[in-house]
Amino acid sequence: MKKSVNIGLLGFGTVASSFYHIFSEQKNEIDDLFSMPVNVKKIYTRGKSHPVPENIKKLLVKSAGDIIDDKDIDIVIELIGGIEPAKDIILQAITGGKNIITANKALLAEHGEEIFKKASEKKVHIGFEAAVGGGIPILRSIKNGLAGDVIKSVYSIINGTSNFILSKMTNEGGKFEDVLKKAQEKGYAEADPSLDINGTDSAHKLAILGRLAFSTSLTMDDIIIEGIENISQLDISFAKELGYVIKLLGILKNEDSKIEIRVHPTLIPSSSIIAKVDGVFNAFLVNTKFAGPLSLTGYGAGGNPTAGAVMGDLVETVSGIINGEGRRDFIMSKIKNKLNIKTKKDIISRYYLRFSAMDRPGVLSKISGILGENSISISSMIQKGRKVEGSVPIVITTHEANEAELLRSIEKCDKLDVITAKTMVLRIEDKID
Amino acid sequence: MKKSVNIGLLGFGTVASSFYHIFSEQKNEIDDLFSMPVNVKKIYTRGKSHPVPENIKKLLVKSAGDIIDDKDIDIVIELIGGIEPAKDIILQAITGGKNIITANKALLAEHGEEIFKKASEKKVHIGFEAAVGGGIPILRSIKNGLAGDVIKSVYSIINGTSNFILSKMTNEGGKFEDVLKKAQEKGYAEADPSLDINGTDSAHKLAILGRLAFSTSLTMDDIIIEGIENISQLDISFAKELGYVIKLLGILKNEDSKIEIRVHPTLIPSSSIIAKVDGVFNAFLVNTKFAGPLSLTGYGAGGNPTAGAVMGDLVETVSGIINGEGRRDFIMSKIKNKLNIKTKKDIISRYYLRFSAMDRPGVLSKISGILGENSISISSMIQKGRKVEGSVPIVITTHEANEAELLRSIEKCDKLDVITAKTMVLRIEDKID
Repeated sequence: MKKSVNIGLLGFGTVASSFYHIFSEQKNEIDDLFSMPVNVKKIYTRGKSHPVPENIKKLLVKSAGDIIDDKDIDIVIELIGGIEPAKDIILQAITGGKNIITANKALLAEHGEEIFKKASEKKVHIGFEAAVGGGIPILRSIKNGLAGDVIKSVYSIINGTSNFILSKMTNEGGKFEDVLKKAQEKGYAEADPSLDINGTDSAHKLAILGRLAFSTSLTMDDIIIEGIENISQLDISFAKELGYVIKLLGILKNEDSKIEIRVHPTLIPSSSIIAKVDGVFNAFLVNTKFAGPLSLTGYGAGGNPTAGAVMGDLVETVSGIINGEGRRDFIMSKIKNKLNIKTKKDIISRYYLRFSAMDRPGVLSKISGILGENSISISSMIQKGRKVEGSVPIVITTHEANEAELLRSIEKCDKLDVITAKTMVLRIEDKID
Repeated sequence: MKKSVNIGLLGFGTVASSFYHIFSEQKNEIDDLFSMPVNVKKIYTRGKSHPVPENIKKLLVKSAGDIIDDKDIDIVIELIGGIEPAKDIILQAITGGKNIITANKALLAEHGEEIFKKASEKKVHIGFEAAVGGGIPILRSIKNGLAGDVIKSVYSIINGTSNFILSKMTNEGGKFEDVLKKAQEKGYAEADPSLDINGTDSAHKLAILGRLAFSTSLTMDDIIIEGIENISQLDISFAKELGYVIKLLGILKNEDSKIEIRVHPTLIPSSSIIAKVDGVFNAFLVNTKFAGPLSLTGYGAGGNPTAGAVMGDLVETVSGIINGEGRRDFIMSKIKNKLNIKTKKDIISRYYLRFSAMDRPGVLSKISGILGENSISISSMIQKGRKVEGSVPIVITTHEANEAELLRSIEKCDKLDVITAKTMVLRIEDKID
């Protein structure tokens, strides 16, 4: 019978140092819970980390191998991030029969299936709640709670940086560049914020979520990804006038076994629950066939919330180890077939179109003529005298249209001599509650 | 090795018939997930139930004993409700080594500890996600996800009927009695709505939640319970004027290992997330030490949402059975010691007081004099000319005060000859986000 459970910790950055702090505070509780000591036995860090407190410097080892090869280590907690060497370390640890806990969304998004398959073969547990939605138990909710239900759609705000910028722009005005700068000063955006604002980070999380929600194989190439770089104050105020706010949404939909998986700035009704989720908060709105709509909101990032999710995984993993290893995770091993995933040209949506046009008679009839020829039906139109850099904005919202047809007609419009800049195209989601 | 998993279903009311419907729809998926058939083998109903479809009449048995004594039945799903015979059946089933899934909040609130203890001894799994919050995976979130964290407080809207009535009164006006009648006509309130509106139903759910959240022993007597029967349109509109809405809240707090567990109508800031949760929706706002605030919202009752939670428990239970029975549920077995629970006289809160007074000079100075003598400090005051049944309402909100002292001073005020009716006392919770 086991006498203790031992952890090897990889990394000592923001999340890992928060984890170590929480773990130390909770250690007595945890030891008591399991009636045996649960220890962090070794820590490996590559140096670009938070300072390691004096009293645990003795735990530092020189290489990840010192952890992987240690037969006494039951659980590897990987918090170094990035693809390599994390991937190699995790695969080796699994081969050695160790259980894994990771917050590495990029790795799981890009190589998750290989890792899950290996974990399933080796019958080890892999906990990754911390990879999506920080302190929000979204994966657990989807994986266990909704396992007997059918997930129809998930609408999510899963990038705190983008949400901070968009809600700041919405509530206080200001240009994208200026607000981004403020976010960087406050530590809400990184020095290089590109993965956050171009949608890649959201797409990583959505890939992980999508696999679980629909039990489908997925790659990053399956995801339609657009960022918030081109959202202007003009679009935010037109959206407001139309009763919408603009959020960077991660969207999953399953209709008749055809899946949509996309990340893009989206107009959603100002009255919807997640329209009010501002700042660095994350939110998930899960629509299921039977349990109905479920919304979860909380801190989606940061040291403590993410480390809190790691702690949850730790308790679950230790339970599993003491109760006898080698258990099968049915939900995880269900991911095998690739469902039919819609490409951009298959999408049906309502659209917000902002044309930049010369202030001349006949412009509107030219635009509406082209839209009409391509079966794009207009729902509402705003044209005002306000000039923006010599042009007049014309905003049109459409009824549901096929994206291929829409883009084709926008391409034609943009070739008109009265159109002065590339037309802004945003998707509208009306029924998200 | 097991070749199939068999269920005995007790009851065929709203939740049970929804469960059977969902189960039938999902059966192929589930059989496929576990690579073996999962069957409803027997159904016992006492007659006061939904009609049992013709094709499953062959599953009906004459007594609960036919299920309990059936060695082939692995899981008993108890959806008959009430204390007896449900309690006796569940205890017998556990003794026979069967796993239990139940939505019976009254039973678990009143006899949960006896049932959990027996389940722990017999090493069977007991799933009760459906007992609290319908389709919202709140127990799972607390039990697994937050196991390594510390729960500081939970604010919850856990009774759909009361929330429907209060939000209707807030948004559309109308008297309590009239709105209740409408709710009954629409099927949102039962013919005898007393357990819903007097706070008992909320207290049942809060008892279950409190045990898990704080790993403490609890009885119904530990809970402070007040209902919404006396909430008038007057209080709702004064609250609005002060920037609050009135909600029937279930509150759990843990400060310095002193616990508060109470259900009562509460003034909460109109701007808070759960202030906007209207109608039959339920909501949970969980504050933890590390992961931060987490909010969950969804359908808290109804056939499909509750049956959806039963399905989640079923998938978890079947996983456990196939992976090898006799596992220990550490979190559940952690519930043993009784923490220090605050009684009414220990509560510190802000208060909303509505005095009914004669329209005479000097009334306010008498009231404020008594409050002052008892160290109750006034935060705001509203006195208006509007007469209600011959009296004038005077509304006072207090700074934080001890409830024993507050009630003592209200008792004195109510003896004043200028006070014409019992003073309305409601608690205010400002910091719930």
